[in-house]
Amino acid sequence: MFSTNPFDDDKLREECGVFGVAGADDAAALAALGLHALQHRGQEAAGICSFDGTQFHTHRAMGHVAGNFDRDDVIRALPGSVAVGHVRYSTTGETALRNVQPLYADLASGGFSVAHNGNLSNAMRLRRDLVRAGSIFQSTSDTETIIHLVATSSYRTLLDKFIDALKQVEGAYSLICMTPEGLIACRDPLGIRPLVMGRLGDAVIFASESVALDVVGATYEREVDPGELVIVQGGEVRSIRPFAPQAARPCIFEWVYFSRPDSIADDRSIYSVRKAIGAQLAIEDPVDADLVIPVPDSGTPAAIGYAQQSGIPFELGIIRSHYVGRTFIQPRDEVRHLGVKLKHNANTALIKGKRVVLIDDSIVRGTTSLKIVQMMRDAGAAEVHMRIASPPTRHSCYYGVDTPERAKLLAAKHDTKGMRDYIKADSLAFISIDGLYKALGEEGRAKIRPKYCDACFTGDYPTTLTDQDDVAAVDQFAMLEERVS
Amino acid sequence: MFSTNPFDDDKLREECGVFGVAGADDAAALAALGLHALQHRGQEAAGICSFDGTQFHTHRAMGHVAGNFDRDDVIRALPGSVAVGHVRYSTTGETALRNVQPLYADLASGGFSVAHNGNLSNAMRLRRDLVRAGSIFQSTSDTETIIHLVATSSYRTLLDKFIDALKQVEGAYSLICMTPEGLIACRDPLGIRPLVMGRLGDAVIFASESVALDVVGATYEREVDPGELVIVQGGEVRSIRPFAPQAARPCIFEWVYFSRPDSIADDRSIYSVRKAIGAQLAIEDPVDADLVIPVPDSGTPAAIGYAQQSGIPFELGIIRSHYVGRTFIQPRDEVRHLGVKLKHNANTALIKGKRVVLIDDSIVRGTTSLKIVQMMRDAGAAEVHMRIASPPTRHSCYYGVDTPERAKLLAAKHDTKGMRDYIKADSLAFISIDGLYKALGEEGRAKIRPKYCDACFTGDYPTTLTDQDDVAAVDQFAMLEERVS
Amino acid sequence: MFSTNPFDDDKLREECGVFGVAGADDAAALAALGLHALQHRGQEAAGICSFDGTQFHTHRAMGHVAGNFDRDDVIRALPGSVAVGHVRYSTTGETALRNVQPLYADLASGGFSVAHNGNLSNAMRLRRDLVRAGSIFQSTSDTETIIHLVATSSYRTLLDKFIDALKQVEGAYSLICMTPEGLIACRDPLGIRPLVMGRLGDAVIFASESVALDVVGATYEREVDPGELVIVQGGEVRSIRPFAPQAARPCIFEWVYFSRPDSIADDRSIYSVRKAIGAQLAIEDPVDADLVIPVPDSGTPAAIGYAQQSGIPFELGIIRSHYVGRTFIQPRDEVRHLGVKLKHNANTALIKGKRVVLIDDSIVRGTTSLKIVQMMRDAGAAEVHMRIASPPTRHSCYYGVDTPERAKLLAAKHDTKGMRDYIKADSLAFISIDGLYKALGEEGRAKIRPKYCDACFTGDYPTTLTDQDDVAAVDQFAMLEERVS
Amino acid sequence: MFSTNPFDDDKLREECGVFGVAGADDAAALAALGLHALQHRGQEAAGICSFDGTQFHTHRAMGHVAGNFDRDDVIRALPGSVAVGHVRYSTTGETALRNVQPLYADLASGGFSVAHNGNLSNAMRLRRDLVRAGSIFQSTSDTETIIHLVATSSYRTLLDKFIDALKQVEGAYSLICMTPEGLIACRDPLGIRPLVMGRLGDAVIFASESVALDVVGATYEREVDPGELVIVQGGEVRSIRPFAPQAARPCIFEWVYFSRPDSIADDRSIYSVRKAIGAQLAIEDPVDADLVIPVPDSGTPAAIGYAQQSGIPFELGIIRSHYVGRTFIQPRDEVRHLGVKLKHNANTALIKGKRVVLIDDSIVRGTTSLKIVQMMRDAGAAEVHMRIASPPTRHSCYYGVDTPERAKLLAAKHDTKGMRDYIKADSLAFISIDGLYKALGEEGRAKIRPKYCDACFTGDYPTTLTDQDDVAAVDQFAMLEERVS
Repeated sequence: MFSTNPFDDDKLREECGVFGVAGADDAAALAALGLHALQHRGQEAAGICSFDGTQFHTHRAMGHVAGNFDRDDVIRALPGSVAVGHVRYSTTGETALRNVQPLYADLASGGFSVAHNGNLSNAMRLRRDLVRAGSIFQSTSDTETIIHLVATSSYRTLLDKFIDALKQVEGAYSLICMTPEGLIACRDPLGIRPLVMGRLGDAVIFASESVALDVVGATYEREVDPGELVIVQGGEVRSIRPFAPQAARPCIFEWVYFSRPDSIADDRSIYSVRKAIGAQLAIEDPVDADLVIPVPDSGTPAAIGYAQQSGIPFELGIIRSHYVGRTFIQPRDEVRHLGVKLKHNANTALIKGKRVVLIDDSIVRGTTSLKIVQMMRDAGAAEVHMRIASPPTRHSCYYGVDTPERAKLLAAKHDTKGMRDYIKADSLAFISIDGLYKALGEEGRAKIRPKYCDACFTGDYPTTLTDQDDVAAVDQFAMLEERVS
Repeated sequence: MFSTNPFDDDKLREECGVFGVAGADDAAALAALGLHALQHRGQEAAGICSFDGTQFHTHRAMGHVAGNFDRDDVIRALPGSVAVGHVRYSTTGETALRNVQPLYADLASGGFSVAHNGNLSNAMRLRRDLVRAGSIFQSTSDTETIIHLVATSSYRTLLDKFIDALKQVEGAYSLICMTPEGLIACRDPLGIRPLVMGRLGDAVIFASESVALDVVGATYEREVDPGELVIVQGGEVRSIRPFAPQAARPCIFEWVYFSRPDSIADDRSIYSVRKAIGAQLAIEDPVDADLVIPVPDSGTPAAIGYAQQSGIPFELGIIRSHYVGRTFIQPRDEVRHLGVKLKHNANTALIKGKRVVLIDDSIVRGTTSLKIVQMMRDAGAAEVHMRIASPPTRHSCYYGVDTPERAKLLAAKHDTKGMRDYIKADSLAFISIDGLYKALGEEGRAKIRPKYCDACFTGDYPTTLTDQDDVAAVDQFAMLEERVS
Repeated sequence: MFSTNPFDDDKLREECGVFGVAGADDAAALAALGLHALQHRGQEAAGICSFDGTQFHTHRAMGHVAGNFDRDDVIRALPGSVAVGHVRYSTTGETALRNVQPLYADLASGGFSVAHNGNLSNAMRLRRDLVRAGSIFQSTSDTETIIHLVATSSYRTLLDKFIDALKQVEGAYSLICMTPEGLIACRDPLGIRPLVMGRLGDAVIFASESVALDVVGATYEREVDPGELVIVQGGEVRSIRPFAPQAARPCIFEWVYFSRPDSIADDRSIYSVRKAIGAQLAIEDPVDADLVIPVPDSGTPAAIGYAQQSGIPFELGIIRSHYVGRTFIQPRDEVRHLGVKLKHNANTALIKGKRVVLIDDSIVRGTTSLKIVQMMRDAGAAEVHMRIASPPTRHSCYYGVDTPERAKLLAAKHDTKGMRDYIKADSLAFISIDGLYKALGEEGRAKIRPKYCDACFTGDYPTTLTDQDDVAAVDQFAMLEERVS
Repeated sequence: MFSTNPFDDDKLREECGVFGVAGADDAAALAALGLHALQHRGQEAAGICSFDGTQFHTHRAMGHVAGNFDRDDVIRALPGSVAVGHVRYSTTGETALRNVQPLYADLASGGFSVAHNGNLSNAMRLRRDLVRAGSIFQSTSDTETIIHLVATSSYRTLLDKFIDALKQVEGAYSLICMTPEGLIACRDPLGIRPLVMGRLGDAVIFASESVALDVVGATYEREVDPGELVIVQGGEVRSIRPFAPQAARPCIFEWVYFSRPDSIADDRSIYSVRKAIGAQLAIEDPVDADLVIPVPDSGTPAAIGYAQQSGIPFELGIIRSHYVGRTFIQPRDEVRHLGVKLKHNANTALIKGKRVVLIDDSIVRGTTSLKIVQMMRDAGAAEVHMRIASPPTRHSCYYGVDTPERAKLLAAKHDTKGMRDYIKADSLAFISIDGLYKALGEEGRAKIRPKYCDACFTGDYPTTLTDQDDVAAVDQFAMLEERVS
């Protein structure tokens, strides 16, 4: 219930969701439904590209899937039995339509359309080299780099060109590509971002999360493996693994916040993992209180887990409005905390005089937590305790998640006591990194080759970060120059 | 949490919310915020009218408050320290902007603006007489009847004209009127629709629900009494009671579904009443089950009450999407129950093999219940029991609630067993009418003068229904003619 | 050629054009075409109301007929065999859609739609009295006064009510009204504004000008006479003349500027009258020059007449752009006369070293004339002589023409020599008032009962001006009070 | 007067106009004004790209300059002292915004923006080769070929790369390119399309026609020579001529129809050339008639010339509406010739009983001529003679002019007598090709190296037509295959 993630300025944000289908009479309609179920992964823009056996058709729009892709005329203009779709949240200043995916290019081999979830960590360096050799980019997207690598590859077949391109990129990518021959779905060797595969009758479907299979009535089949290419062509499904095998490192934050609670990832129910996190939190950080209150909506499963483990009743102490408006004119100074009140309101009759435990999934900047704690106090809470269903978020993500610069992460500036002071709670506790791994069925975080990418908590990045290093080199060089002159 | 009521085709719908403020520098901005908090009472259109001491300014728009009234230019075009606002859901085919409230008229006494929650039950007859005498209506709204009665009244002062008008109308009305002198708020003698009063510094505020006071940081003062006129003029607040006193009959459905759970009505927390209904339901209609699952979002407080009373764990078995699109193209026949899946998805991993109790607030047509039960079975539920937090809805409302014609109400066609067969549940039970009154603190429904209007459950309408009688008379006459000829 | 009148800030502007048709299967399509041909009479807004035998259908829009009423969906939403249409240029600040005509009202007798060309000179006083008696106005238009007079008339039949209403109004009105019975077209007793009647098969058509008959292929039949009501009902056409007969006074400016040159008014070709004015001007005010140059487009017919009479060659010395943009950002001070250059450009190669006679239809503020003369000098003209095809415009119009306040009329402030100095021409001359009447076939302007309304030139208003007198009385009273206090 | 060319389905259409400015504080505002003056050269879309010393800014829009580029916010979003602009009429089905110019690309050397008037005759073959080598095209425009040739050139400097690119293309091009260093304007070796250069203070301006200099108050300096590159960089202006010299062949149709009459091309006034054509036509093809009537607006200068030479009076026999709507619903069959009537109306009072000579600039399909002749007869003309101010248009243009396929050109199907029969005139005559050259100051058309490109009249194309030949080869090959199989 309630747990898909609407826009919140104080959350980490998944940047993209992808969907692909081959072999269905009404591929674009299925893609529209699938993208709707993935809407929480990207609310800024959406796009669908279909292939009708002869021509590619593309529609891309700023805004939600509903309102753009629920229209009969739009879907009818996307005929064909193969389609790829994409929802996007942009991290850069560029919100132009030309960055909205799926990207499309006319290659010598025919049309080529690609939808990408993730982020390449050497895209800037590759781009610079490509432009020097004569490639002209039409977007500022890292994804376009892949297309130019394919276009200029000296290999002969499209598949060889594509593998040649993948071997040059580093970082996170779950890709769904459409060609006149069919679909190619693939996932980077570490499997950082998710990608699942399902069936609907004869049709093969790929999607970022299993809920996109549910919404079209498809059956979940399996994950696309890290480093695997799945090729769907004329009803045949083939698998290729062109990379040397290595241990996977899927993003742990998908379980904490990004994925919908009704999704299955790595054969685990997101909802049950979140409840387990809440239960583990109640064991690690108990508190004597009257009410367990979720910060809606993302804190709810963990709050249920915390309540069941602790025996403290679960209650709706904060009511969330479904009608969000982000830019309301603030009428006057007395109306404090207005922004948060438009979205959340305290259930005053319930809270008055009570000791409450608030459960939230994470703290990013801390601004929302500060307002929520104050809202509880204004409503007459006797004590306000905050429990967080993830470890402190201390590092930026370079793999397709929108994180603020480090200087704005509350946990990068303060220890837990300092954070408690900032949000003005009576107590504050985070689940431990080992506790989080326990909730996922491990004994704790392995020292060597931990099972997940948890760089945002630990700073342990599983790939090289070429573009970051280049920037750092330039900065160092600049510093050097300054000293010299 | 989650309990404001987004649009659902299979719910009764409150038709309107009203807001008024006098004595605030930024009246229109406050009105926009207040209407945003009342958005669940009417999602079709919104309007604000302000008075700047010299001129009236009006902006009305189809659609939500957010998107229309959160824009700086719109609010700046509504200057003044007095404002009235309105959100509307239209029951008729007429969606034209001219029906969007507040309605405005230039009377001989100056401008007159009115926002109305409720419905007059003799508006058609009054309109016919007014048109014959030369009045020209610009809308099809029953509210305009009141304005013409004021305009053509032979009394001298505007207040006397207004009281003269009110004495001619019958039905439900919570009105907020704005004149060059200030505000007049009033409620029909039975107080069928709610209206509360609050303060923000020197400003006086009226609103349909107390949440609209919360959002602007105002203090709840009291309800406007049934039959009372509250007049705010130059900082003074006066009360007039021009009607003979009679026992009030506020709409009981406000507690069941319409009002937000964080509102206070009749000094009772809506949330705690709903939990009490759930607990009462667990006492009246227990069931041996593994999980209590709310039908999101409106069934949640009753589900918590049911779970706490019964000891069966409360779990999120149905996940609701925040991104609603109502008109998605349905791709093919195999994709059954598509409409409901776009909004709701079963938490399959949780439900598989379990006996579940679903808690919903009401059943109107039964179409949603049928789909939800089927969704539980598709997810592998061992048993599906449905419990409803209100008695069977058997009668139409003529007081400002959008009810389908009686023939479409499931409870008007079937007894509980027939309804259970229709929705295909293993069991179905409704709270009793006495149980509902108990949850509201009564001993049961009084035979004489029951405390609430519960006509939708009982058919006991507290006023005459002139227009309905006229229609019936015409129908009877037509039948008579048919027999004669 | 080229002589319909696009928007020019320095012209008098006709405020309205009307069109009505009864008895055609596709009435709204004919109305759209007719209004398109009348577009020069009002470019701000347009509207069409149709009646399909049961219901009235209305579409009104800001902007041109093309772009709004050339769309298939719009016309299909206006079914029926009877329709009225209106194009409007608003003189007041009010540009709201509710002022766009045809106005519509539900009267006790049924729907009533009205399109009005002209202006009532006692509308404000009538409105004040109606509001006091309880009428509620929905627009600020003087036309609505007529509807309320009809609605509240104590006569029994609609026709009697309508005649009762007309007898109370004063000023200029060419009206086309639509009722469930058919059309009523009428013209005020002085026939100030034009109204013609034609036939297309069995259909009867009314329009402000004969060009609206041409465009739909209809045959011109006759003018509606001053003071006449023509009633079209079920294929029958009746004429009623409820007013005492009096000499007509049609607006002389229709021949000077308002009407299209291909229209016929009072059985005279507008084009041939304009050529005759030019010829008369050449006789009255000859000049020794090399080229006769029209100020495009309205000066062209008079320029041809002037050239033919004088023997000086007619040449295109000013080129007009068809693509008008009124608000271009002016880049810098050196780019002088930018506004006029966007619309007009000198044909420099032609003009250089030549003595030119510019022919324009009128001078209002004089701002355009000043720029045009300068443009000729910049292009190297040896001498620039200006000849005007109407007498000096010295007085405001209260009968439906947009005139600036008197203080802004160049001729109200200066004699001809002063005007010549202002526009910096080598010479300036206007046709005499008697010369103008001669071009219209008279011997000159009759001292008693002149044949035309020429108040803008002479100040001789043919009706009382009640509202102007009321304003003046208030002003005098205010002055009196000031003196007393 | 009246002579800029609004859209007409039965005219040849110039496809583009270009404008560039360097060294002006408000370059984009000047570009907007200049494009407005060039609007007749392309009404489908417009674009401006500016450079502010650091960044390129682009705005492109479907529709007219006015309405898109007369808005303050648009111009303010285009800062900088250098700008290029483009108006476009698209010949292909592709109307997508991505084809609207100026095109822009990020090259290794920095931004590169280009506006192109003309058409390359080997663009398809070049594109095929570029795509095979890895170039990815984002538009279907032939202009993009030039950009990719620049991007992939092996030369070192941008200027050398650009010249390398130009040497590979064939056909017509007047180009204005913007780089971080400044502007490069150039014209193909034959100078098929026009390009002029002017000054406004220190700023240098390039434009398709001199009227675009007039509108911003700039001084005409000279034409850019065929085969010349003019480079504006940091206030310096340099000229480069990288091509072997050859005789120019500018498009003769610019004088007949495309250019505005107030433009100067090749140091000749377009207006005076058109009058000379009219006079030559009167000498070659005299007729005994009462009135000379221009087909508005493009026939007007030639009609004045014809009238002055023949002594027959020039009169406005056809009135053109300024308010064009192209898709009005045609109400019924009786309303014949509706399309033409919306735009043109006969001045019946003038024409009745008269022998008229109609002067038009050209006949393309003949459909308009047919309607105009019929309109004259319907208005009562005694005789209708048609005289055309150009030779018969018998061949397609491949250099940037929209011509119908040959099969639709009336002159490709009929001799003059057949054309007269088709349009139903009493007589029809065209100016001879030698007469046309005479009006341009020549003795006649030179057998060898005629001075103009007149391929549309003569079929004598001055360049190879590679893409046409490729199509023809494929067709021949297809025919061959058919025969073999």
